[in-house]
Amino acid sequence: SRRRRVHEVLFFNELGEICLDHHRGKSFTNTNDCSNSHCSLRSLEKIAVLMDEAQYSIDVAIYTFTSNTLWLALKRALQRGVSIRVISDREMVYSSSSKIQEMAAFGVPVRGPFKTDLIMHHKFCVIDGLARVQEILQMKQRKWPRPYESVLVSGSVNWTNSGFGANYENCTISSDEVMTRQYQEEFNRMWKFFGDT
Amino acid sequence: SRRRRVHEVLFFNELGEICLDHHRGKSFTNTNDCSNSHCSLRSLEKIAVLMDEAQYSIDVAIYTFTSNTLWLALKRALQRGVSIRVISDREMVYSSSSKIQEMAAFGVPVRGPFKTDLIMHHKFCVIDGLARVQEILQMKQRKWPRPYESVLVSGSVNWTNSGFGANYENCTISSDEVMTRQYQEEFNRMWKFFGDT
Ligand SMILES: [Zn+2]
Ligand SMILES: [Zn+2]
Repeated sequence: SRRRRVHEVLFFNELGEICLDHHRGKSFTNTNDCSNSHCSLRSLEKIAVLMDEAQYSIDVAIYTFTSNTLWLALKRALQRGVSIRVISDREMVYSSSSKIQEMAAFGVPVRGPFKTDLIMHHKFCVIDGLARVQEILQMKQRKWPRPYESVLVSGSVNWTNSGFGANYENCTISSDEVMTRQYQEEFNRMWKFFGDT
Repeated sequence: SRRRRVHEVLFFNELGEICLDHHRGKSFTNTNDCSNSHCSLRSLEKIAVLMDEAQYSIDVAIYTFTSNTLWLALKRALQRGVSIRVISDREMVYSSSSKIQEMAAFGVPVRGPFKTDLIMHHKFCVIDGLARVQEILQMKQRKWPRPYESVLVSGSVNWTNSGFGANYENCTISSDEVMTRQYQEEFNRMWKFFGDT
């Protein structure tokens, strides 16, 4: 059952932070009133809101993850019982500013091509991907899911402050069935492969 | 007028090069017979074929561009009279393995945020984007276009040999009207801004 269809491209550019003074000191979750249509804070908040709406799962494949805003959203999801899995790159796991170690300390399983020289360069997450939700329902022996929507967030943008700032980046949000299914499938394939090696 | 609808996600992963021996010594444009469904050569060839089908324009916004295959495809497009514009990053323009300088020497206009510290991190191209084709038809004072299809190629993958190899990357090919229009609009916005500054 789908609540709504999401399909939007977020662009980050030199106009993304011209409204920073307007936001300073205000609550982060209040960017809807921003008159800057390129507002990077609002774009980042849109991604956090999608995570806040997750019902069952968030599968993250991210090269660089230092964004506190998105880590807070993932922590809120964890506290709601949402299942989170993370695939990342070797370099980022050992980077001090990376959130990956903190996530692992919180009990989030983390995998990646850590024994190889291959770079894990994806920057996507699948929220409530159909195949993953079915897997979770089966594990919990539940037949009837709560309403949920499979959503893909994917682009050039790493989950960092500079990525979500004034650099030139894109990020597509899509609930297209083909897109969410294919990304969830590749995540599952990588997850299994990195677990076996 | 649209010839066909394209909508496909290419994934690059550790299986991408297990068929390299099969291809070695053979013509590049002959990967359709490859039995490896993750073949990275075939995925790269799909992008080159889309460039070969360009009728009017290819607008490229790319952080790193060292792929000889795609540069050859762009050169073929140039020779057919296709209008090519490139937006890239400062660091890449001065990198010796980058194709950007070679393209500029071929007469391809190149722009970017070269006077700022901002990173141009996009990895996309729009082929025959509607707004750009209309602009070109107007410049040439033609009313009736040849059949063409607007296509977007965008993902995590830079246009390098390692990107199109065994690293973990994604690349979405889409002729979705909203997607191609929005990326073409942001390209045009950046193009104008980088030209004025
Ligand atoms: Zn704002
Ligand atoms: Zn092959």
